Amino acid sequence: MPSPTALTVWSLEGIPEIEAGADLVEIIAQAADGSLADGDILVVTSKIVSKAEDRFVVADDREDAITGETVRVVASRTSPTGATTRIVQNRLGMVSAAAGVDASNTPEGTVLLLPVDPDASARAMAAGLRARLDVEVGVIVSDTLGRAWREGQTDHAIGAGGVQVFEDLRGGTDAEGRPLVVTMPCVADELAAAADLVKGKAARRPVAVVRGRADLVGSLDLAGARSIVRPLERDMFRLGADEAYAQGYADGRSAGRDADAEAYVSGP
Amino acid sequence: MPSPTALTVWSLEGIPEIEAGADLVEIIAQAADGSLADGDILVVTSKIVSKAEDRFVVADDREDAITGETVRVVASRTSPTGATTRIVQNRLGMVSAAAGVDASNTPEGTVLLLPVDPDASARAMAAGLRARLDVEVGVIVSDTLGRAWREGQTDHAIGAGGVQVFEDLRGGTDAEGRPLVVTMPCVADELAAAADLVKGKAARRPVAVVRGRADLVGSLDLAGARSIVRPLERDMFRLGADEAYAQGYADGRSAGRDADAEAYVSGP
Repeated sequence: MPSPTALTVWSLEGIPEIEAGADLVEIIAQAADGSLADGDILVVTSKIVSKAEDRFVVADDREDAITGETVRVVASRTSPTGATTRIVQNRLGMVSAAAGVDASNTPEGTVLLLPVDPDASARAMAAGLRARLDVEVGVIVSDTLGRAWREGQTDHAIGAGGVQVFEDLRGGTDAEGRPLVVTMPCVADELAAAADLVKGKAARRPVAVVRGRADLVGSLDLAGARSIVRPLERDMFRLGADEAYAQGYADGRSAGRDADAEAYVSGP
Repeated sequence: MPSPTALTVWSLEGIPEIEAGADLVEIIAQAADGSLADGDILVVTSKIVSKAEDRFVVADDREDAITGETVRVVASRTSPTGATTRIVQNRLGMVSAAAGVDASNTPEGTVLLLPVDPDASARAMAAGLRARLDVEVGVIVSDTLGRAWREGQTDHAIGAGGVQVFEDLRGGTDAEGRPLVVTMPCVADELAAAADLVKGKAARRPVAVVRGRADLVGSLDLAGARSIVRPLERDMFRLGADEAYAQGYADGRSAGRDADAEAYVSGP
């Protein structure tokens, strides 16, 4: 007995394999076939945005591609089998494995970089769909990311257009009237996660529709998913534990030598 | 035009304020009012499980309560306003702020600890609802958690009974036939996130139903949410950057002094 406030999430059928230069607004509008309504939120897998934007790179350059997308190495680890995982911050500010460079579901011999500017892509799709279909929809561009401390991956928002990324309750109060001081649900990430439940990783269902949170849909000027990235100065996990330890060790060793040398010079 | 494979998510109305000793199976069954079907997944906010399990502690002991729930301090930081955030690993293995000790939406003067064993609570609720209503449901116990690298919070699974926590695609292949080597979606966290979109933090809607992923519902012997916790030896972020640096610095300083002393003894 779903209530009128229920959320409904479904994937669009009939999205073809996306080629470079594809018009995603046209393709999504066709697949939606008149089903979209004001307040719907489309969650579009970043992979098809990258493909439409021709972000293919030949696979021989995979490691170079990762390096090219990397602003800062956060952590890296080599597994017992010899495979190295690099957790890096990319030019979008996102922290993820392999800078989002994707080698699955791409033509043999190629890898795919993330969209150049996923917020801009999301805004352009929202604007295009609003204009073409005369419905006020929001668009999220999603990517599958691993997490610190938890196994497995979940989908997250890496781009947003015309949809609030946070539900700001910081000014609100709880049911007892006390201020909800630090609660700021990242609804964009929750929408991406909900959408992943109907997408299926191996199948070609790259676009989902979420209906039931029209309150989050609004101006195309709303802050994008870039605003989800925690600034470095507030990030307690800006560096992996091994990497931070190694930096500290090197600095401490220099300081220890200096201190000892000083002690020797000045005498006991 | 939601397809037959759509996901529907709604919150149960009429859940009363939960008191210590409350029978959650009875309360959820009443609120569901015959609406549950085989394959439905209930997402129950940990707060009401804690309340039913009488996990209240008087508020004077909040810091003690956090310390008592803490197995290991992962990171801590004092903000410019003087408030200290402690990111800790609790006895359940979860990494979170304040060990999940919750001071909002509790009676004045009290704080609430997490359930003793959220997986056991979820299994007991699933078993109870299955027996009482003769429907094969799964149960997730959810909690709101901050994340590394990203602002805001999303709901996660901290307990699971009768529902798969991972969708294991590691043995599968992508649409091009290449193995999906590392993809293991944490569907339990995605279900918790989806449910949060219909719950509302400030309102009293602590139980949501997710319909449309009956494939994830199964035996009560399925692994619980404890299996989502990444083992320490695989965790690149087991310690905050500042904390790891400080450890390294201290060790490096000792080593530097020793090395210098040795160099002095052995001569140039």
